[in-house]
Parts: sequence; structure tokens; C-alpha cells
Amino acid sequence: MNEVNLDFLFYPESVAVIGASHVPGKVGNGILRSLVNNFRGKIYAVNVKGGEIEVNGKKFKVYKSIKDVPDKVDVAVIAVPAKFVPEVIDECGEKGVKGVVVISAGFKEAGRADLEEELVKRAKKWGIRVVGPNCLGVTNLENGFDCNFNPPERQARPKFGPIAFMSQSGAFGAAILDWAARHEVGMSKFISLGNMADLDESDFMLYLKNDPKTKVITAYIEGVKDGKKFFNVAKETTKVKPVIVLKAGRTEAGAKAAASHTGSLAGSYRIYEAVFEQTGILAAKSMRQLFNYAKALAMQKPANGDRVAIVTNGGGAGVMMSDGLLERGLKLAELSEETKDKFRKAIEEGKLPEHMSYANPVDVIGDAPSSRYELAINYVLEDPNVDILAVIALFQSPALDEGIVDVMDRVKKYGKPIVFIAPGGEFPEKIARRIEKVGVPVFETVEDGVDAVYALVKYGKYLSEL
Amino acid sequence: MNEVNLDFLFYPESVAVIGASHVPGKVGNGILRSLVNNFRGKIYAVNVKGGEIEVNGKKFKVYKSIKDVPDKVDVAVIAVPAKFVPEVIDECGEKGVKGVVVISAGFKEAGRADLEEELVKRAKKWGIRVVGPNCLGVTNLENGFDCNFNPPERQARPKFGPIAFMSQSGAFGAAILDWAARHEVGMSKFISLGNMADLDESDFMLYLKNDPKTKVITAYIEGVKDGKKFFNVAKETTKVKPVIVLKAGRTEAGAKAAASHTGSLAGSYRIYEAVFEQTGILAAKSMRQLFNYAKALAMQKPANGDRVAIVTNGGGAGVMMSDGLLERGLKLAELSEETKDKFRKAIEEGKLPEHMSYANPVDVIGDAPSSRYELAINYVLEDPNVDILAVIALFQSPALDEGIVDVMDRVKKYGKPIVFIAPGGEFPEKIARRIEKVGVPVFETVEDGVDAVYALVKYGKYLSEL
Repeated sequence: MNEVNLDFLFYPESVAVIGASHVPGKVGNGILRSLVNNFRGKIYAVNVKGGEIEVNGKKFKVYKSIKDVPDKVDVAVIAVPAKFVPEVIDECGEKGVKGVVVISAGFKEAGRADLEEELVKRAKKWGIRVVGPNCLGVTNLENGFDCNFNPPERQARPKFGPIAFMSQSGAFGAAILDWAARHEVGMSKFISLGNMADLDESDFMLYLKNDPKTKVITAYIEGVKDGKKFFNVAKETTKVKPVIVLKAGRTEAGAKAAASHTGSLAGSYRIYEAVFEQTGILAAKSMRQLFNYAKALAMQKPANGDRVAIVTNGGGAGVMMSDGLLERGLKLAELSEETKDKFRKAIEEGKLPEHMSYANPVDVIGDAPSSRYELAINYVLEDPNVDILAVIALFQSPALDEGIVDVMDRVKKYGKPIVFIAPGGEFPEKIARRIEKVGVPVFETVEDGVDAVYALVKYGKYLSEL
Repeated sequence: MNEVNLDFLFYPESVAVIGASHVPGKVGNGILRSLVNNFRGKIYAVNVKGGEIEVNGKKFKVYKSIKDVPDKVDVAVIAVPAKFVPEVIDECGEKGVKGVVVISAGFKEAGRADLEEELVKRAKKWGIRVVGPNCLGVTNLENGFDCNFNPPERQARPKFGPIAFMSQSGAFGAAILDWAARHEVGMSKFISLGNMADLDESDFMLYLKNDPKTKVITAYIEGVKDGKKFFNVAKETTKVKPVIVLKAGRTEAGAKAAASHTGSLAGSYRIYEAVFEQTGILAAKSMRQLFNYAKALAMQKPANGDRVAIVTNGGGAGVMMSDGLLERGLKLAELSEETKDKFRKAIEEGKLPEHMSYANPVDVIGDAPSSRYELAINYVLEDPNVDILAVIALFQSPALDEGIVDVMDRVKKYGKPIVFIAPGGEFPEKIARRIEKVGVPVFETVEDGVDAVYALVKYGKYLSEL
């Protein structure tokens, strides 16, 4: 495998926007705007028309060619009509540019495979690596290097965090960024893959495998570019960090739609499933599931087994969680006799209420304060029959005090993965963010929590069988 | 079937809280507080201790017995220790109370089936109908009659709307109310079923069937009380309005947990599935699915067939939607030659872009303004091969103007059900609320939209086969 260090693409010191425009709404204007908003490196505007552009109060001299820029340029973001792209690549080559992000559409996806080949040929000649064409570019949430032309009032940017996301669909990628921002999901790097004329999903996966800022790699994919390469790269990458793929085009109708969308031969989903299984990739079937998996794996270590314990203050939620886990092929832990004795004794001593259930799910009942949760969680996590814990808290009960945040901090000491589920509205959401600050991921619904447990068990199982 | 009009329970003119307390955090204090906050009828406080209680600046004389209240009382909400409940029922009977809501726990669920039988016996003697015991009571979002003791800062109340919800789990019911408030889901009536010593899920279903304020009936159920009654009531009810049930205890572990939670013999889920299928009940497997189904059915009429058309400005989202629909057993409409001709002609005339796809999914591509959506939607809805439409809009593209709201208003004229999907963050959410004001339900993710389409097709199919 050729390990490519793509840092030059994500951490440029200077960037040129070729096709920069002063017209709001134009792609070349949007890119410049995003860079001015977020990026602290040097920014140069290039357009054959020359002149001057003002963006967010900042004035740019417009160079007629990148060759006129009086400084080195690490990355060029290209947004000129497709037919001009090959010659722009040559100019970039002469200038010593290492990477180009080609936003322009009008290549293979529009029946111009020839133009795309020409683009690649010229780039290869100069040793330039290419993102795209026909894409939204890359966004590095760490340093604000952001080629995405969508304005912030339409598409928010997520905060910096541990999840990298690659997307074969630019529009869907943009929706995901906006969604992630809204739901406080932190991202490291976003890559809109576009036509993948040069760099493809496997190249980026390999780069992200070694990226210290990325803990989990996620991707939306319709069809991979090179199956064998993907297989090999995935197999190496999942040894180091989890990879989660939302594969679209799983059904006949979906595959047909994919063929007309990205030209991907989606292939039989069965084959993809086999590849995912063999390479340890987690396959998500929806956007929410993708991020449930990712959040769990970014915040907790994988489980050493599949025996799940549940501690809840609501019996119904415990029943639903049990159903959800079993329907996903997981199992409830059988608590040891020693653990049951601890519960019996605590009940006798009045430390736990008479009518609680200490079968798994452990139901600490509706009037449980955080201290009762702590006792029950300690007993459960001390049990060698338990590999992973799901805590469900219905915060609508005023009995449940905010001490639960510290409880979750303290019970981390057992070193077993924990998933927290807090269904409801504003109050649970507020506490959820505090619990996440101590390192335990919190989910909004029981079904989201089931996803989280599934991911931790499934990836743990893969690693243990290596 | 005994059609019971339970209006007296949901629309009382006067209510007494028996076990009213001045101690914040106590159940009898919480109930009084909720009523004072939300209910405009007469409220009386009863407690053997007598004295006076102040709640939210309002002073209540405390009557030692309900019999001392100098006025008629329609409903009594009872929150005294279980052992006192039977005699309180007698006092209610003497006073002429028609319905009681027994919040108190400590009956069958705590091994005191005898006490529960006594409660029922006394209530029957006086002709009093009983909600509970061991429940959160009823909440009528229309008139603010709210027996729920959870404080508003912990559990928000949803706005008034068309969805009724019954829950066999009080704690989960509370979480659902809080969640519904957060997600702007409107509710008509909430019923915490508790032990169902007297009134059960079928009685309430029958009442809600005739309730003009309820368009869709939803329920969380672990086990029904009387299978035959449930079957007959459901069969009649679904002729009039949709019923959606989230049945928990579907798996062995879930059923075991349910037995220890509500004592429900969950029975084989296969039997429930057969009953749901035969009675036209839609079975949801998660909280989100329950409300996706409910929202779709509350806002759109059921579909006359299963042929789904998709119009999208993002190819990837169209692929995912195609997958989701097919995986749920639905199918994509085959657009007629006439429709395809319309598209071809519009493309030739430059009214639609050259590279768009007019196979289904119809991809109006990323730079589509609302006018392009309107043209495409008109063509698709005029097609007799299309029974239902899913519109996907990725609002991250600045090209998509807010005129889409009026477009959705205008295309209602075709009379075919429409589901709108707007993935992302704040901006789509803002437009979503405006689109819902014109009557089209909007969903946050493709998978939620798939649920919505499924519900409209499935219920429509049931009705058409009656």
C-alpha cells in the first residue's frame, strides 16, 4: 500500500482560489468567503479578469494567473469552467502547487470522460494530487481550511472533533455537515470525493488512518473505485481505528439511481456486505445510525464481549432496550449470584428499594436519585459477566438529581464501555452535554442507544478475532 | 362493544386532588402545581391533615375529606398511600364523583392484587370509572387538565395537536411528552394506563375513536389486557382513524423484562403481529418510528397505492431513499411515457437542465430553484402511475429559494399524499415549520421520510382492502 501523507492538502500555508468571483452566489465567491471566514493561512484570488474583490470587508487583488502570485502556493482550489481546467493545472504545475481541489463540474459525470482524463494526465505530469472534480472540496475543521462554497447561513460547519467524514455525494455531505453542527457532533475533516479522478476513498482512508486528529472514519459511498485497493486499505485501517460506511445503492432501485447519480456500478450489496464483514468495517444503513456508531466509538473503547447490562429508572425503557439489543443479535448479561447477593443485601439494609428489579435490566425505579444509580452501576460493572453497560435515565422524574454527572465520571474506573440514554427534551439534553464532557456518549432514544452498544460490541469482536 | 364516552374524565369542570401536599417534590404537590399551571376549571385540595396550601401564589383551603368540598366534583385525582385508596373511593362515591385517577402505587405491581380488587369493587359499586392505579394520570392538552406530577422544568408539555398517546409505562410516557414538546409534535390527549384495574387500552381507544380532537391514536403497550376486546375495538377504530402501536416485549429478553415491569404476559410477538395485520394497526418498533408514522397520518391522507415518486436536488439522497423504500417492501413508480415526454420537452426548451435525471428518482440537481421543483413535481403528480410523492430538499444549496413553501401549498391540488424531507440543521428546520403550516409533513432524515411514506401506503392499503 502506498501510504500517502496528504497533510499538504489539509494543512496548507497558502491557498489560491482560481475562478474567484466578486458576484455573491457564484461558486468562486462562496469559496473565497468560506476561506476568509475560517482560514488563518494566506489566501490569493485568481481570475483571468483581474481587478479586485472585496469579501467580508477584506480586499483581494485578483491575479490573472496563479503564476503571478508573488509567493508560493500549496493548494489551488479550482472553480473555472471544466474546459479551462487542464490548462489551469499546467499553470499550477509551473507554480509548484502540490495539490488541487477541483470544484468544477462538467467532466465524466456530464459525459466528458475525455476532459477528466486530460486533467489527470496533466496533474500526473506535474506530480500534483487532485481532489474531485465535481465536488465540494475538503474542509479541515481544525484549521478552518474550508473549500465549501455553501454559505454559513445555509450550511453550518460542525465544531472540531474526532470524526472524519468522506462523501461520494456533495449535496448529502453538505447536509451531514449542517446536521452535525446542529447536533453538536464534532468533526476532524470532511472530504467531498466527487468523481475521484485521482485521489479516491481508499487514499483518504489511508491518510485518515494515520491522522492523529481522527479517531473514527466514516463515509457515504455508492460504489468504491477499486475494490481490491479498498479491501486492503480497509483491512489495515480497521486495525488502527474504526471505519463506518453508509453504502447506498443496496437495492435494485437504489443501484439504478446510483448509476445515474455518480455513475457508480453499485454492484451486489451482498458482495459489499462480505467485504465489510471481512475487513471489520461497520455498515450503517442510515445517517443517524452512522453517527450513532461513530459517536460511541469515538468516545468509548470497544467491548471485550457481547454481554450487555442495563440499568434504568424506567421499566418500559428497559423492556424496549432489551428488545432492541436482542433484535440486533446481542445478548443480556446473566448477572452472577455474587452480584445478586449484593443487591439482596443492599435491599435488606434499606440501601435499595424493596420493589426494584435486579434481574437484568436492573430497574432502580422512578424515584431513584443518582446515589441509587451509583450503587447499582457499581454492582453491575464489578460483575465479570458484564462486558458493556447501558444506562437509561428518564430525567422527567425530579428525583433524579444532577449528581448523575459525577457518578458517570466515577464509574469510568471499571474500564468497561458505557453508553448513556436520556430520552426527552431540553433538560435531558442539557445534562447529556455535561455527561459527554466526562467522556460518556449520550443518546436521545433507546434505538440510538442500541446502535451505540451494537457498534462497540461488533468492532470489539472484530478486533479480538484478528 | 360498549362505547364509553369518557368526556367526563378529560373535560371535568371541577377536580379534587386527594392527598394534596404543601411539600415541593411530593406527588400530591406536583399534581396540584400542574393543575394550577394549566387548568382553568375549579380545583380543590383534599388531605386528612387539613390546613392551607399555597401553590404558585395561589392559596388553597385543604378539605379533610372530599365530602367537605362545598361544590360538585367531577373527577378526583388520588395520591394517598395505597391502603387508604378503597375508603377514599367510597367517599368519592358518596360525593357523586364520576371518575377517579389513581396515581398511587402499591397495588398489583407490588404484590397487592387484593387491594386492587377491593379498589375496583368499591368503584363498581358507585359506578365510578378508574384510571390506574400506579400511573401518571391523564393529560388533556386542549384544556390543560393535567394530572401529571412531573414539574415543567423536568418534563415539558407538548402543544395541543392531533395525536393521542397512551402508555403502559408512565416513565416512558413522560419522556415521550417531553420529547414531543421538544420536537414540536402536537398532542390531543395523553393517558398513562397504569395497572388498568378498570379502564384499559381498549376502552380508551374506543373513546379516542370518537374524539373529534384526535386524528391519530398511538400507544406504547407491553401486553393488552383483554385480547379479544382489543381485537374487536381495534378493528372498528382503524376504520375511522389510524392506530399505531409500539409493542415492547417482542423478544424473549424483552418479554421477561416486561413481565417484571408491568406483569404483562407479553405473549408471542408473532400473535401480536398477526393481530396488528388483521386489525389494520401499524406496528412501530421505535419511538421515532411511532411519531414518524403518526405525523404523516395526521397531516396527509393515506395513499391509494404503493407507487412512490421521488423528486430531489441531491442524487445521493435519492439513492438512499430508493434503498429505504425498497427495503420496506415499497416500490418506485415507473413514470409514464407521457411524463417522460414532458420532461424531455422541458429540457429541450431550456426550462429544465440538460444533465438532470427524469427517471424516478427525479433529480432536479443541486442548483435547482423552487420553480424547477414545481415543474418537476407537477409532471410527476399528473402521472397516473404515481400514488404518493416524496420531495427531498437539501437546503444547504443557496440556489433553493424559500418559494418552495408556496410550491408545496400549490401542489396539494393534485390530492395525492406528499412527504417532505429536509436533512440538515437550523435553516432546513425553519423552512420545515413553514412547510408544515401549509399541511405537508416534513422529516429530518431520509429514513424518517421512508417511515412516513410506509405508513401512508400501508394504512391506505388496509383501508382499500376492507
